[in-house]
Amino acid sequence: MEIVLPDGSRKALAEGATVADAAAAIGAGLAKAALGGIVNDRPVDLRAPLADGDAVAVVTAKSPEALELLRHSTAHVMAAALTDLYGDVEFGVGPAIENGFYYDVKLPDGKALSPDDFAAIEARMAEIIAADEPFIRSVVTRDEALAAFADQPLKVELIEELPEGEPITTYAIGSFTDLCRGPHLPSTGRIPAFKLTKLAGAYWRGDSDREMLTRVYGTAFFSKKDLEEHLHNLEEAEKRDHRKLGRELGIYMMDPMAGVGLPMYLPKGARIIRTLQEWLRRDLYERGYEEVITPHIYNADVWKTSGHYGFYHDNMYFFEINEGTEEDPRPSEYGVKPMNCPGHVMLYKNELHSYRDLPLRYFEFGTVYRHEMSGVVHGLLRARGFTQDDAHVFCTKDQVVEEVVAILDLVDHIMGTFGFAYEAEISTRPEKSIGTDEMWDHATKSLMEACERHHLAYEINEGDGAFYGPKIDIKVKDAIGRTWQCSTVQIDFNMPMRFGLTYRTEDNTEETPWMLHRAIFGSIERFLGILIEHYAGALPLWLAPVQVVVIPIADRHKEAAAEFAGQVKGAGGRVEVYDQNEPMRVKIAKAQAQKIPYMIVMGDAEIEEGVVSVRERAEGDLGKWDRERFLSVIREAAL
Amino acid sequence: MEIVLPDGSRKALAEGATVADAAAAIGAGLAKAALGGIVNDRPVDLRAPLADGDAVAVVTAKSPEALELLRHSTAHVMAAALTDLYGDVEFGVGPAIENGFYYDVKLPDGKALSPDDFAAIEARMAEIIAADEPFIRSVVTRDEALAAFADQPLKVELIEELPEGEPITTYAIGSFTDLCRGPHLPSTGRIPAFKLTKLAGAYWRGDSDREMLTRVYGTAFFSKKDLEEHLHNLEEAEKRDHRKLGRELGIYMMDPMAGVGLPMYLPKGARIIRTLQEWLRRDLYERGYEEVITPHIYNADVWKTSGHYGFYHDNMYFFEINEGTEEDPRPSEYGVKPMNCPGHVMLYKNELHSYRDLPLRYFEFGTVYRHEMSGVVHGLLRARGFTQDDAHVFCTKDQVVEEVVAILDLVDHIMGTFGFAYEAEISTRPEKSIGTDEMWDHATKSLMEACERHHLAYEINEGDGAFYGPKIDIKVKDAIGRTWQCSTVQIDFNMPMRFGLTYRTEDNTEETPWMLHRAIFGSIERFLGILIEHYAGALPLWLAPVQVVVIPIADRHKEAAAEFAGQVKGAGGRVEVYDQNEPMRVKIAKAQAQKIPYMIVMGDAEIEEGVVSVRERAEGDLGKWDRERFLSVIREAAL
Repeated sequence: MEIVLPDGSRKALAEGATVADAAAAIGAGLAKAALGGIVNDRPVDLRAPLADGDAVAVVTAKSPEALELLRHSTAHVMAAALTDLYGDVEFGVGPAIENGFYYDVKLPDGKALSPDDFAAIEARMAEIIAADEPFIRSVVTRDEALAAFADQPLKVELIEELPEGEPITTYAIGSFTDLCRGPHLPSTGRIPAFKLTKLAGAYWRGDSDREMLTRVYGTAFFSKKDLEEHLHNLEEAEKRDHRKLGRELGIYMMDPMAGVGLPMYLPKGARIIRTLQEWLRRDLYERGYEEVITPHIYNADVWKTSGHYGFYHDNMYFFEINEGTEEDPRPSEYGVKPMNCPGHVMLYKNELHSYRDLPLRYFEFGTVYRHEMSGVVHGLLRARGFTQDDAHVFCTKDQVVEEVVAILDLVDHIMGTFGFAYEAEISTRPEKSIGTDEMWDHATKSLMEACERHHLAYEINEGDGAFYGPKIDIKVKDAIGRTWQCSTVQIDFNMPMRFGLTYRTEDNTEETPWMLHRAIFGSIERFLGILIEHYAGALPLWLAPVQVVVIPIADRHKEAAAEFAGQVKGAGGRVEVYDQNEPMRVKIAKAQAQKIPYMIVMGDAEIEEGVVSVRERAEGDLGKWDRERFLSVIREAAL
Repeated sequence: MEIVLPDGSRKALAEGATVADAAAAIGAGLAKAALGGIVNDRPVDLRAPLADGDAVAVVTAKSPEALELLRHSTAHVMAAALTDLYGDVEFGVGPAIENGFYYDVKLPDGKALSPDDFAAIEARMAEIIAADEPFIRSVVTRDEALAAFADQPLKVELIEELPEGEPITTYAIGSFTDLCRGPHLPSTGRIPAFKLTKLAGAYWRGDSDREMLTRVYGTAFFSKKDLEEHLHNLEEAEKRDHRKLGRELGIYMMDPMAGVGLPMYLPKGARIIRTLQEWLRRDLYERGYEEVITPHIYNADVWKTSGHYGFYHDNMYFFEINEGTEEDPRPSEYGVKPMNCPGHVMLYKNELHSYRDLPLRYFEFGTVYRHEMSGVVHGLLRARGFTQDDAHVFCTKDQVVEEVVAILDLVDHIMGTFGFAYEAEISTRPEKSIGTDEMWDHATKSLMEACERHHLAYEINEGDGAFYGPKIDIKVKDAIGRTWQCSTVQIDFNMPMRFGLTYRTEDNTEETPWMLHRAIFGSIERFLGILIEHYAGALPLWLAPVQVVVIPIADRHKEAAAEFAGQVKGAGGRVEVYDQNEPMRVKIAKAQAQKIPYMIVMGDAEIEEGVVSVRERAEGDLGKWDRERFLSVIREAAL
């Protein structure tokens, strides 16, 4: 028989050959590295038999599919270890997830796990791994499965729900057998590095009416180094958590009484937001954008016209206004805006437009409200209320590429300022969509051409566009390697048609303008949350809500401290004087904890010499500086 | 018999003496000037008889009641003239109103009035006035009245509704008799100046199910000069109407689909609003305020705690969020904020405060939504959505005066910048109110003391304070003499108690802070509306959305025009280049119509000499200027 390799070449193999045999036939190195296979696009075990004509790829530690294989297998090893240690453990589900795996378990006799138990479980897992037990796959009948898992009521429930005709499989390592679709590593010895990470409660099947199980989380990597880096990043992420830092640095607060997902910004948070906005605003004016301001509520007629009333209704907040008249006593329905587009479209429609007016670029810092389930809101990163740095570009078909290039240039400027690397994804036409093939074709090609002209590599998300048009999504990578979806450029065929937008062409005919939605930050507050985590709270000088604290050493230095603070303010700086009666080291520790970029110490020597002693939050003591030298640093950082 | 005069003195009069006799007894001048009287606080005719002990004031043209008397009488004269001219006119009601009077009428045979008829009506009115017909009052029975007005079905309806026991009176001038409570001038000759102003349709009794009458508006004054000034102001007001200018200057738009009272700001309007905000923001930072940002929606629990849920419910927009849990499946109720105070109060409460932190001054440009009946919304001046330049000061009792003085200083700075004169009113404790006498006393005295320390004269509005505390209202006077309520300073006893705010005193006890609400603009958009009318659209240079247009005379000057525009931009200016192919005078007319402060003409001579020809919107041609001279004017105007 013959199989087809990923490069299209063919390889002859003996009848009954497995993926492992295929790997061996390709080379000894691959045979050693092989962990599993992808056969006709489906992941399989290394021992899976092949058939004539199969398309076969060998999975090694370097394959994108490898980590899931590894982590799913590690979950089984953990389950085996738990059974060895605790006896009749009941198991729920135990999948691989992003960055690791978990298993939902119920220990016998109501025993509760604690992180203190992790060492013992990990030790037993290490023994199972050292024993290099093979993962043995078996195909069983439903009756056999029910018999085998008779003492596992949760598994029985899963078995009963498996559709007729689908093969039921189990995987065994040593004496431990689990119901599982697979695939798995060939043996436990192929797990180089793992760690249990945390515990949580989880309702069986996510249903709060069912019993609460213990979810044991862990992770696994193909090298100790990767694992350590991941654990370090986890720790970093925890230290950088914007909710913790947001509270410590006085950025924002939440009040349960105020409602779900509604952050309130304290003076320092408001400073940062206003600085970000003003910084972007000036740039946008330079780039030919015009600012507009639209209301937060609209009559439902707007949402019916835009279509949001239908397809976005459950994410919106609607209310009634009792302004019925004699003729029509019905109340009017209004909705809080989840998007700014209808407002900008109505502003466009307010005047007649000629091709000479285009492109027209409206931007707005528009605060929108979208319903999120209370369970998924998360600080600034996922809130119900947030402010989009939203813009809509109305242009001709021929201007689309140039406009998208200009937007990508803006993205580059903004993300570059914060040191974010980023990646682009272009999403193409989904099955359910509006617009002609010709429009989709032109739109998608325009996005690609813009990326190419901008030398921006992109991936294609086939069929992942919005129903109203294709888009480019920009994902930024932060200081600890996490990616965040921020900027987006979307072409919209829908709004201009629904609102009947037009412009007069050079030939004096009426045309529908092309419309681009775009946001760079996405949500300003969410971007602030990302920045806090990216910088671990130590925002760059120009953005820091307090840039400088002046610390008088003794009472007699207070006047000079206040005077210098005045000079810093005069240079456009944001400055505080720490003139409480506390030791200098306490004040410095406070300023460090507040991540304030510069601490200026003012004592006898500084006053006498007319200098300042400068301390930088990361670099520490920078020595005595000429005052003007310091003021010019501050002046440089002003918007 | 004896009467009591306004100064408390008594005057003996013969039995049966009238107000006219009383005036004559006081002096010949007053007798001549007398138009009517106020007897025991009720306005009466000059011929009204007096009784022993009556408190009598004589009404002359200078009395506050005089204009109403004059205008009501003029309405009768107009009705008489209409009857003389058109025959069987049916009359509805004809009251004096602010700035004039109207009469609702129905002409025979379906004849419709037009402003073209005003000259004839005014001519006939002038004849009636020249004839100096006395206003003859008669008391009649209901039956007599019904008989007399048998051919006036609308009057019959009014007569039938008059309560039993109330005297029914009529007033006649010449052959024309009207049903009327009075009082009136002694005779038509006492009407020195009048004018019919406009026509409108009005449903009988304001009921859209009843017939439509014609409302004829007019006005009257005690001198031709006053009338002319008023007519001039009317004309000015019409020219300055911010709705008309707002459209012409591209400031804002309304879309009926968007809803009632929800202006949407076009780029030029947004520029002005952002400039106003940034200007005020910088000032507020200088004055020790800190900016905060709070959501537009809150859980109803917030509004219940604040009390708005009860006393402001009908002015608010509430909706439900379906986030019920298993335990409590009820949806949560949320409300769109009509005020920013609860947010600021929650921010205050987020931290513990010491007396050392006070005063704490939070400000926010907070967009709020308040229900207004659709019939009363009026452009930017009365909208459902607007942005308050809101601030709340939390301080100790002893800091109140100083804080209010600082706010008055800010008011003075802001209003002075726009050339607004203003007046202050202090409103004191109403009947229904919370708080102790001691609190009210301290609060009210603090407001007065602050005004005094600021040398600001004030009037007292006895009992007109809010239920939660006394306040200072600031009313500004615009360029055509109209007054507008803008700034307000209110002391609030309610919020700090309801939210349980505290601070730790120097003696380490807990105290409730004092809280001031204050806004200077009031609503930024409403203030913009007032500014547009005040300046007739010609906003000062620093605030104008476009400050300069550069006009190249011919194609060959376009490059130099663009280059100079770049320099203007570099100097912080907002500039446009008019490079369409149109004659220069057309471009200048356009710039004038747009009320753009400066027009720069660029031609051969200007390029050769390296100068610019400067035209100012009001002053006209200013001649050739050194370029740097012009740029420094622009630089000066930048924020």
